[in-house]
Amino acid sequence: MASTNLAIPRSVIWNEESISLLNQQKIPHVTEYLELTTIKDVWEAIQSLKVRGAPAIGITAAFGLALSALQDISETIVDFQRNIKKNRDYLASSRPTAVNLVWALDRLVNSISNVQSINEAKTTIVHEAIQIQIEDEEVCRLIGEHALSVFQKGDRVMTICNAGSIATAKYGTALAPFYLAKEKNVNLSVYACETRPVLQGARLTTWELMQAGIDVTLITDNMAAHTIKSKNISAIIVGADRIAANGDTANKIGTFNLALLAKAFNIPFYVAAPLSTFDPMIENGDLIPIEERNPEEVTELNGIRVAPEGVKVFNPAFDVTPNHLISGIITEKGILSNDYQKEISKLFSA
Amino acid sequence: MASTNLAIPRSVIWNEESISLLNQQKIPHVTEYLELTTIKDVWEAIQSLKVRGAPAIGITAAFGLALSALQDISETIVDFQRNIKKNRDYLASSRPTAVNLVWALDRLVNSISNVQSINEAKTTIVHEAIQIQIEDEEVCRLIGEHALSVFQKGDRVMTICNAGSIATAKYGTALAPFYLAKEKNVNLSVYACETRPVLQGARLTTWELMQAGIDVTLITDNMAAHTIKSKNISAIIVGADRIAANGDTANKIGTFNLALLAKAFNIPFYVAAPLSTFDPMIENGDLIPIEERNPEEVTELNGIRVAPEGVKVFNPAFDVTPNHLISGIITEKGILSNDYQKEISKLFSA
Repeated sequence: MASTNLAIPRSVIWNEESISLLNQQKIPHVTEYLELTTIKDVWEAIQSLKVRGAPAIGITAAFGLALSALQDISETIVDFQRNIKKNRDYLASSRPTAVNLVWALDRLVNSISNVQSINEAKTTIVHEAIQIQIEDEEVCRLIGEHALSVFQKGDRVMTICNAGSIATAKYGTALAPFYLAKEKNVNLSVYACETRPVLQGARLTTWELMQAGIDVTLITDNMAAHTIKSKNISAIIVGADRIAANGDTANKIGTFNLALLAKAFNIPFYVAAPLSTFDPMIENGDLIPIEERNPEEVTELNGIRVAPEGVKVFNPAFDVTPNHLISGIITEKGILSNDYQKEISKLFSA
Repeated sequence: MASTNLAIPRSVIWNEESISLLNQQKIPHVTEYLELTTIKDVWEAIQSLKVRGAPAIGITAAFGLALSALQDISETIVDFQRNIKKNRDYLASSRPTAVNLVWALDRLVNSISNVQSINEAKTTIVHEAIQIQIEDEEVCRLIGEHALSVFQKGDRVMTICNAGSIATAKYGTALAPFYLAKEKNVNLSVYACETRPVLQGARLTTWELMQAGIDVTLITDNMAAHTIKSKNISAIIVGADRIAANGDTANKIGTFNLALLAKAFNIPFYVAAPLSTFDPMIENGDLIPIEERNPEEVTELNGIRVAPEGVKVFNPAFDVTPNHLISGIITEKGILSNDYQKEISKLFSA
């Protein structure tokens, strides 16, 4: 693959003695990388939402544990392993519901279960953390390659939320094909829905695509139908928070709207997600719990109230797109597009 | 009809020597009525968008001209009529594109073309201004009565923007059935889409329905599909900015989205609008020009930037819903619901 100097933003950079972490809360106003030098820095950065995106959170936590390993002054391997487990629990408490975080931390803890020396343990943990980041980048690149195969030069593609580079190791999921297209000089245009109430599309997706010089246009979510029609949108691609055994997909609120619009306009609707997003234990989308968040997310903008005091608010964070509205689920292993139930089952029984 | 003490907010109140005008820019934070005592006050209030909604703007301007008539000290009817025409032009310049404004002002000017005395002229103008407000209220009430006939007790109805009481003389268009239902103790629930970018749903619709004690829940626009499904929405009703000869309807951006969702969920989608909103000279919706507004409406919230500097923005103010997605157009003369082309033609050739 041709490598270029494309400025694809990364949210987590490992510097051996510190972690540079993109402060996503200051995007798009200021591009600020925090220098994290202690495990407490890392805990606070995760807890205070400086980093978002399941893979990016997992990678940050892994490097945090690696940092603590390098700084450990234990004299016996038993002490060292006990400290690592204590630090694992501490970091795991920074965002208790983040599945990737615990998964990444446990992978590091397990990696040193059979080491012979503290030095070997330190090297192993750092190596494992780096490996997690490399693997995620590779997964995202593969998703991007597969996704790119469904687009044509000149396509205008709509997306929602930020399934982007800064939510992962690099490239992102739904945004990966746009970076790969740019690297290959294939011209694609992106229409980013702002994604109320938290505006990840307006704040993050536009910013990261603009860093790489990718053509992106911002719209509000309710402009989608008019935009699809008047701008001749070719396809819609979104990320996923959780995919059930039958392909039903939970993703950021508004995704289901777009899937229904895609069907109405007879354009393809793609979900881009790694295998780690699938939950084959969940039979279908009706069984996926939908988190409801604070009404203030809807009634306040920048801390200023826009709706009447006491107004009733419905604020679901996600919605579920039924499998029959999905033209393809694009994974690192290829594109699922027929009998999702069967294809997903095959993927996970292998 | 049973009359109750329902608090249905009015935006324009005539006090003979002044106009009380609801300052819609301060809703929902402060309920402030401005006391306008001069034509200059009225011009500034219209120009600075204190009043919005085509009928409400027309009524405000009419009362402004009536105010100037009462204050006129001409000694001849010719001088008086010249002053009224001058004041008509002045008020017409407050919002040059507002069709209702010019229509209301010209109706007042024409009303005094054959008067015999200045006193008669003053009385006639005031009477005509009051008449415009009464007629608009009656039109809205009739729309509400017809609209109410399509809803059942307990229905949950979604709307967008503010086609409400404060945009008209009273009752509004799309919101009229909810006030009439409340007056009749028929229980309806409203789901109000916030209506980005200007948030008329969040700021105005919730506020005015809450004043009257009507059950209303606020959602962001991208929550519509999930809400229709999970809250079992019965129907969608919206206002209109312009209806073409074939029934294609231009309305606030996001309306077209909702019409497509209504079709996908197989629930009715109604447009509520007075005959004055029809433009039988426009053959179909493709010929309705769509205004694009400032990108800052999308990129700034409460004056604070949320998207990157220099981001491309598409900001259409309206969209067009094709006639085949509309279950009925509810007017003061009844509900059009079959061959719109034929029914509209009949309505306007009569």
